[in-house]
Amino acid sequence: MDYLKLDESDMVTFSAPVNIAIIKYWGKSCQKLNLPMNSSLSLNLNQDHLQAKTTIATSSTFIKDRIWLNGKEQDVEGNTRLQACLKEIRRLARLQAVKRNEDVHRVTRCSQKVHISSRNNFPTAAGLASSAAGYAALVAALGQLYRVDGDLSGVARCGSGSACRSMLGGFVEWVKGGKSDGTDSIAQQFVGEEHWPELRVLIVVTSAQTKAVGSTEGMQRSVETSALLQHRVDNVVPDRMKALTDAILNKDFSAFAEICMKESNQLHAVCQDTFPPLRYLNNVSEQIIRFVHAYNEHCSDTRVAYTFDAGPNAFLFVLERHLSEVASLIYKIFGPATDNATDFFRGERFKAYQSDLPDFETKICPTSAEYVICTKAGPGPLQLFEHNISPKTGLPLP
Amino acid sequence: MDYLKLDESDMVTFSAPVNIAIIKYWGKSCQKLNLPMNSSLSLNLNQDHLQAKTTIATSSTFIKDRIWLNGKEQDVEGNTRLQACLKEIRRLARLQAVKRNEDVHRVTRCSQKVHISSRNNFPTAAGLASSAAGYAALVAALGQLYRVDGDLSGVARCGSGSACRSMLGGFVEWVKGGKSDGTDSIAQQFVGEEHWPELRVLIVVTSAQTKAVGSTEGMQRSVETSALLQHRVDNVVPDRMKALTDAILNKDFSAFAEICMKESNQLHAVCQDTFPPLRYLNNVSEQIIRFVHAYNEHCSDTRVAYTFDAGPNAFLFVLERHLSEVASLIYKIFGPATDNATDFFRGERFKAYQSDLPDFETKICPTSAEYVICTKAGPGPLQLFEHNISPKTGLPLP
Repeated sequence: MDYLKLDESDMVTFSAPVNIAIIKYWGKSCQKLNLPMNSSLSLNLNQDHLQAKTTIATSSTFIKDRIWLNGKEQDVEGNTRLQACLKEIRRLARLQAVKRNEDVHRVTRCSQKVHISSRNNFPTAAGLASSAAGYAALVAALGQLYRVDGDLSGVARCGSGSACRSMLGGFVEWVKGGKSDGTDSIAQQFVGEEHWPELRVLIVVTSAQTKAVGSTEGMQRSVETSALLQHRVDNVVPDRMKALTDAILNKDFSAFAEICMKESNQLHAVCQDTFPPLRYLNNVSEQIIRFVHAYNEHCSDTRVAYTFDAGPNAFLFVLERHLSEVASLIYKIFGPATDNATDFFRGERFKAYQSDLPDFETKICPTSAEYVICTKAGPGPLQLFEHNISPKTGLPLP
Repeated sequence: MDYLKLDESDMVTFSAPVNIAIIKYWGKSCQKLNLPMNSSLSLNLNQDHLQAKTTIATSSTFIKDRIWLNGKEQDVEGNTRLQACLKEIRRLARLQAVKRNEDVHRVTRCSQKVHISSRNNFPTAAGLASSAAGYAALVAALGQLYRVDGDLSGVARCGSGSACRSMLGGFVEWVKGGKSDGTDSIAQQFVGEEHWPELRVLIVVTSAQTKAVGSTEGMQRSVETSALLQHRVDNVVPDRMKALTDAILNKDFSAFAEICMKESNQLHAVCQDTFPPLRYLNNVSEQIIRFVHAYNEHCSDTRVAYTFDAGPNAFLFVLERHLSEVASLIYKIFGPATDNATDFFRGERFKAYQSDLPDFETKICPTSAEYVICTKAGPGPLQLFEHNISPKTGLPLP
């Protein structure tokens, strides 16, 4: 590689959030375009705790598109989803450049190869929607590099369906759209991250193992074999979407929590109805579900809600005023055998709960979670000015 | 109690089989009459291995109806399901006696109190549908005692819905019926126990614990909260019933197995979609499901099928020619840590498999089942002439 001198305009870095779906996306109506069978709605989480950070560099000297994830180079040629994103953003860039009568340089630039370096500030394999955050950061950075105006969530969708929901802050709806070319299957912000400041999220990491059947393959198997999925899509999701958006607007935690848990349960019901059945929850997940229902019943009040994506990690919603008590209970039931709360709880700090805890949890078998991340709603992609590609070598910084 | 001298006509004993549902019953359209939302189909198992045996005695000296289960007296007054059976069979007995212009004695006899003693030849709490077998034996015995002609499955249904399917041998359909009084919600034999002699059933007992939420309460919760149950009832079950009866008629194991597993999965999917969710499977059940799919895939042939009722015990179907290999694999993966196959396998004897076993089972976490009962199809209720109530005391024999 020649000695480079990439300047600011040759490199762009964006970070993007992990999102957790409340109305679940499970099943594609078009595999090629990543079009969903139903609209979905998710919350983007704070990037201080979960974030993908992607730097793109471009140079006329680069001989091919290359990508590194957490410093390790990945195949680009065989990655059809990445290819789809690159192709689509370059197509839009050229289209817009021509429309604006821009100079040949800009148009030519889209033909230059890129080097992409993406890093997560959390374990990639932990099943925490790292691909959604990764594609959102990638597409936001490419959009800036190529000066593409307008909505980019459709481009992110080409990379990973749910990535489109990481393109805006707060609560975001992925509208399924109706056009066969997918151009109206995009993300729309429902309310920003500041809308419901009391809402907290506890991510209980129950297993850092990668899943046996990935989401793409799993949902395709559900589309082909589940006798319940189409009914869910047609007859269950639309009412729940309406009820959920009402609950969010009114900050009605109890209504929010019920829809949230029912949606999670129905996703896993459809997985169970798939043939052969898909099982993403593990024993600890099951005990967390029991814990949440037992605790809410004990309180005669809905204070915690769970949701699980296609993986065993629990995302618990709780209002700030109940956070300490809930966290203390989780530590008591799912904490490590040795006394080490500092390492067990990560993310946002909160006041430890000192008083006696209720004695309801006898129904739950004590099992161990790995750790808990305490977080809250956060913004969409953010531009950063610290890159993780060296301007001298065009390669990821160590 | 006075010194009695009950003679043969004062005592009747019947045995009845346990049945395992293939098209599942989950959800009542009428709780009071035990009417099901959909028709179901089950196989009755051989009574040599699983059987309820019930003796009824009657005497003008008995001052109240009494019942003993496995020698332990139970409440009768508060048992509405038992009361419903007794009331219905006495009503039919009086009706038929009057119609036949029988003497007053016969009519009066229905007003005499009964002592009921019921015993199972298997652990009652093992979640093996003991109540279905128990109610079937009870109703068959009462019918004989009171000389009630005609179908009695409707009376058994009043005791426990699925008990009606234990009133006939082999494959039995419980037709849901259409009348609001439930009189056409009865069992019909589809084919007798001799129809498919190669079919074997391995019952893998994974837990002898009683379940947290009983079937009656569980299915009621599903009726009230699952957004998928009604769709299953209306749109899935009818086609499956047709396909299953075809498969049974043609002894098409592969087709039979697929419907069987899909039905089991859908039952547990609906349970998962219930709010709060119901979970009847345990970790060992999940590993058995994996084992079956991995083994069938390894063989490129469907050789084993699982089904689970509302409990964690697996009912595996296998043809006789594959029994030894399947049993050996189960022993290898789910057997006891200590080498004791004799105690692990119960019921029908089979030839142990000696050759090398395929090495596919690495995906399955080794877990332990408690024991395995090997059985096959069997007849409906049988009259026995050995009673388990003393003719001298009117109380259960020790």
